Amino acid sequence: MIRAAVIGLGYWGPNLARNLSTAEGCKLVAVCDKDAKRLERASKQYPGIETAASTDAIFGSDQIDLVAIATPVHTHYTLVKQALESGKHVLIEKPLTADVAEAQELVDLAKRNGRVLMVDHTFIYHPAVEKLQDTIKRGELGDICYYDSVRINLGLFQHDVSVLWDLGPHDVSIMQYLVNRPVKWVQAVGVRHAGQPVETMAYLTVQYEDNLLAHVHVNWLSPVKVRQIMIGGTKRMAVYDDNLVTEKIRIYDRGVELHSVEGVHQAMVQYRIGDMYAPAIATDEALKRAIQHLVYCIRENRTPITDGAAGLRVVQILDAAQRSIASEGARLTI
Amino acid sequence: MIRAAVIGLGYWGPNLARNLSTAEGCKLVAVCDKDAKRLERASKQYPGIETAASTDAIFGSDQIDLVAIATPVHTHYTLVKQALESGKHVLIEKPLTADVAEAQELVDLAKRNGRVLMVDHTFIYHPAVEKLQDTIKRGELGDICYYDSVRINLGLFQHDVSVLWDLGPHDVSIMQYLVNRPVKWVQAVGVRHAGQPVETMAYLTVQYEDNLLAHVHVNWLSPVKVRQIMIGGTKRMAVYDDNLVTEKIRIYDRGVELHSVEGVHQAMVQYRIGDMYAPAIATDEALKRAIQHLVYCIRENRTPITDGAAGLRVVQILDAAQRSIASEGARLTI
Amino acid sequence: MIRAAVIGLGYWGPNLARNLSTAEGCKLVAVCDKDAKRLERASKQYPGIETAASTDAIFGSDQIDLVAIATPVHTHYTLVKQALESGKHVLIEKPLTADVAEAQELVDLAKRNGRVLMVDHTFIYHPAVEKLQDTIKRGELGDICYYDSVRINLGLFQHDVSVLWDLGPHDVSIMQYLVNRPVKWVQAVGVRHAGQPVETMAYLTVQYEDNLLAHVHVNWLSPVKVRQIMIGGTKRMAVYDDNLVTEKIRIYDRGVELHSVEGVHQAMVQYRIGDMYAPAIATDEALKRAIQHLVYCIRENRTPITDGAAGLRVVQILDAAQRSIASEGARLTI
Amino acid sequence: MIRAAVIGLGYWGPNLARNLSTAEGCKLVAVCDKDAKRLERASKQYPGIETAASTDAIFGSDQIDLVAIATPVHTHYTLVKQALESGKHVLIEKPLTADVAEAQELVDLAKRNGRVLMVDHTFIYHPAVEKLQDTIKRGELGDICYYDSVRINLGLFQHDVSVLWDLGPHDVSIMQYLVNRPVKWVQAVGVRHAGQPVETMAYLTVQYEDNLLAHVHVNWLSPVKVRQIMIGGTKRMAVYDDNLVTEKIRIYDRGVELHSVEGVHQAMVQYRIGDMYAPAIATDEALKRAIQHLVYCIRENRTPITDGAAGLRVVQILDAAQRSIASEGARLTI
Repeated sequence: MIRAAVIGLGYWGPNLARNLSTAEGCKLVAVCDKDAKRLERASKQYPGIETAASTDAIFGSDQIDLVAIATPVHTHYTLVKQALESGKHVLIEKPLTADVAEAQELVDLAKRNGRVLMVDHTFIYHPAVEKLQDTIKRGELGDICYYDSVRINLGLFQHDVSVLWDLGPHDVSIMQYLVNRPVKWVQAVGVRHAGQPVETMAYLTVQYEDNLLAHVHVNWLSPVKVRQIMIGGTKRMAVYDDNLVTEKIRIYDRGVELHSVEGVHQAMVQYRIGDMYAPAIATDEALKRAIQHLVYCIRENRTPITDGAAGLRVVQILDAAQRSIASEGARLTI
Repeated sequence: MIRAAVIGLGYWGPNLARNLSTAEGCKLVAVCDKDAKRLERASKQYPGIETAASTDAIFGSDQIDLVAIATPVHTHYTLVKQALESGKHVLIEKPLTADVAEAQELVDLAKRNGRVLMVDHTFIYHPAVEKLQDTIKRGELGDICYYDSVRINLGLFQHDVSVLWDLGPHDVSIMQYLVNRPVKWVQAVGVRHAGQPVETMAYLTVQYEDNLLAHVHVNWLSPVKVRQIMIGGTKRMAVYDDNLVTEKIRIYDRGVELHSVEGVHQAMVQYRIGDMYAPAIATDEALKRAIQHLVYCIRENRTPITDGAAGLRVVQILDAAQRSIASEGARLTI
Repeated sequence: MIRAAVIGLGYWGPNLARNLSTAEGCKLVAVCDKDAKRLERASKQYPGIETAASTDAIFGSDQIDLVAIATPVHTHYTLVKQALESGKHVLIEKPLTADVAEAQELVDLAKRNGRVLMVDHTFIYHPAVEKLQDTIKRGELGDICYYDSVRINLGLFQHDVSVLWDLGPHDVSIMQYLVNRPVKWVQAVGVRHAGQPVETMAYLTVQYEDNLLAHVHVNWLSPVKVRQIMIGGTKRMAVYDDNLVTEKIRIYDRGVELHSVEGVHQAMVQYRIGDMYAPAIATDEALKRAIQHLVYCIRENRTPITDGAAGLRVVQILDAAQRSIASEGARLTI
Repeated sequence: MIRAAVIGLGYWGPNLARNLSTAEGCKLVAVCDKDAKRLERASKQYPGIETAASTDAIFGSDQIDLVAIATPVHTHYTLVKQALESGKHVLIEKPLTADVAEAQELVDLAKRNGRVLMVDHTFIYHPAVEKLQDTIKRGELGDICYYDSVRINLGLFQHDVSVLWDLGPHDVSIMQYLVNRPVKWVQAVGVRHAGQPVETMAYLTVQYEDNLLAHVHVNWLSPVKVRQIMIGGTKRMAVYDDNLVTEKIRIYDRGVELHSVEGVHQAMVQYRIGDMYAPAIATDEALKRAIQHLVYCIRENRTPITDGAAGLRVVQILDAAQRSIASEGARLTI
């Protein structure tokens, strides 16, 4: 039985607590937060768990195997480091850190200490993303030739990071998971509005190997909420619309076909319009599946899909994007 | 009565002929095309008009006041030049040319000869675009802070130009019309697929003065058709969805408000969610309105909204974008 | 070569003329209308055809094999009768007549004279309806257990018949084609608004054999346009949304399954949520296909899908519905 | 401080408990259920409350002012009667009962005992319904001429009542609230599928005074979920789509206008297409507002909007509908 603790009971932490308390093979034994009211509430909800106002009690306890951390980004490095150094497995809220070197150090530390370090890129465990990945893996789309992601809505509520670091980790982690190949360069442009000290909207371009162009639009100032990923393949194309309750994923048997005939080039490019289908998607909670995967990885000594290395690559891309914004949109490697 | 001729009876020319033949104050007197069948068809449809297999007969006639040209882009420069030099007013299919210097020369020539040179950026005369422009002009959106345009579908059928020059003129001309301020720089990225010699998808970024970031996505490889423009203002936001039959324009009384209180920054950023309304849009044909505007400008010696200078700016932006694609996404001035 | 004439060049007649003039194996030789301008227009468009201000010239000519009639409903009976009596094949605008006895008489007359009588229920030849019919025929939906059709919009423009007889023929003809079984009873309710002498909205219920309940909502006073048919089957369910440009038909692998276990009834009823798919639909014009079918039936001496008998059944159902409205919603047989 | 108890902790009861425990002026003091586990769970969540396995303890206690009942329909009559007789105020799950005489008796009893009897027709307290009602009341729609409600989805999960009594109370209560005038007659048709002992789909027609026709479609066998109400008025029309997250209500400035000119009838009927607007809707939980309203009514001795009388009328209409189904669709008064 894995004994888990949650640090940080703000917005996301209670969800971690709830899922850790119900996951098979796992047991919630402690929570930590500076706010006494939050601790009291947790204590009522999970009778018998330990509560701690400081992380020392968590890291110092030999009754805790796993620490799930849901605190502000700027605290991630220190807390994950302490947790790993005290021999705990770690689940860390996304992004892993906001600094590439720090992220790298944590990855190395986890490896050295033989501990599982998993980043909570929850969407990777969403049944829709899993279905998309499966579709791609089985070759249904053919070769991927573009990837376009839009994640926009009215946001900007008490954020200490730019829209790139707030919404971007979702897009970049899903993209990396589905596309799964080396990055050639990253380029971005962003803009600050309404007197904000951080970007309120940004466009991110990632050139992958194999002529695959990926593009992400994140925006806190959109009057409408859009959560859409479009993937163009040589055989089929997919659209993932997370706003839809059902039919979130649509596979279009459509494309443009090139029949190269010398000298008669133009007439030989043709549309192909075939069926569309929307596979049934399971309705399990993504976080529940993420926690199940974490428990499995700890017990079986496996590497999580969203391990530190995967989290590091997300940080590298976002970091390059942020630097590109600061460098007049220069194309940067990671 | 303005006597008009149409050169080029391919896809778009017949629409020009139809509207020139019915517009008040205008009369279709001649058509020109290399294809005898097309001439014959036009002759039947408009009994009594002249037909010509060569442009000489058009440019040499003193019975023609206005020449409407709908031929491939690479012929625009020569034909417009000849038309203007022979003293005709000109309506030229978009884009004006594919070359900045040539476009500039045509603008100068029209001015010198005192002739009307209008580029057929038809969308500018669409009731929906007019309504949007009116909304912006009356200050309903406040200051514009971003502009995002998506024009994607399954395309690539017998095109001799890239997606940027095929779909882009629509986006750029509308954007210029609505945004109406100096361009600081242009940046673009594009990619070629399916063995094409030209870009099949492209992302174009235009930084305007006053911190206004504009972005355009054009794509021939999208399984779904999208025609959407989103405009963020400090007071309201607008979405123009041309796919909708009714309610093409939606004005959202939404935004993010900053209440700057020293030291308590974060809590002071707030959403504002108000009503949405979709103004009634007239259903006249855009081209019909464009032709009416052209006739008016010729008769009253006025400058068309989409005159040569406006057409030139579209060419400048697309040219800079194409050069940016060739220069690793460099930011270029126009 | 079948020699065709069109009587009535109002709204729909020109479409018949266009398709008859281009259909293989058919030739447009004459048009008839009281309005001289319409005849002149047609004459220009189809050089060499005969024009007639009265139907006598059409019915009396031995140079005409087929007469397509697109005149107001109250003239149908007389014109079709005369056409059949003069030995012509007939294509008649829907509905066949507004009177059951008259419709029956025309069916009998066509049979007696060995002429093809086809009613222009165009939708039956729409590729989407054909695809639906094929889907049902192949058993993909299982047994049909309900049929729900909604056809509403802002209408009521110069109509001399009620909404039931204006929009209803579409719904009822499609329904009859797809459902294809005996009617047990018909029931309807309608209401007149805005001082109209005819119903402006109506709900029509048709009980078919095999426990199949069908329902139709037609309405001229809807602020939104809906064109939707939903068909529930024991295996799958289909939705046909004619407003959509693509994916007009969606087949849902969904249903409710009954596992009868004695004594534990309730827990044994379960949802089944499977994939959805939208088959590719051809984009040919429905009327073009209808005309092709007509030509084929005349040449090969076959019975059209929408022959007089099919048209008669539509009239019977609408007539019963109208009588039900007048009889306080009584359930009537046909 | 009103002291409240909840009877029945199945699907809906816990929501009642949660809102009663947090509403101002109210306090949750007891819960009652046969299931010991449910009681234990509630006990943990609301430390200090009484738990009871039988209703006697609830009805017999003088420490309880209000009883909220969320048990199966067939138990409503007895429980409400006992609660009222023991001097409690009552909130009863919808429908009030499944029998008109019993409902009438409860209404009378509440009146006699001077107790508040409120039926939990939660939707009436939904901000969207409130906005609609306000729109109608202010005359924005003009006179209402039709009402069309569709509430369909895949359902039929462990229901002991027909779709009419399961989904219908929502439609009928909203309709009654918005339409607010005498019923002339009720007519309905329904059908049973999949071996069910109750109707799985039904169409309900209600003729109100003033030529207002109302129609409701409820269905457990629809592959898609629809929650839509359309209201036609002489001045404007409204569509309430509860599936939408934002813009649930749309007001269309559209209609058909009759200009009665003697002898030129037809040409004088015209469309009017004006703006559409979607008012901002508050996002409070409907049940929270319902409970606040209940507390207010008890304290201030007011009659709730959804009092016993309103609940009785819903029962009368559903009862008439069910009898109409059993009587071959006869039109019945209530």
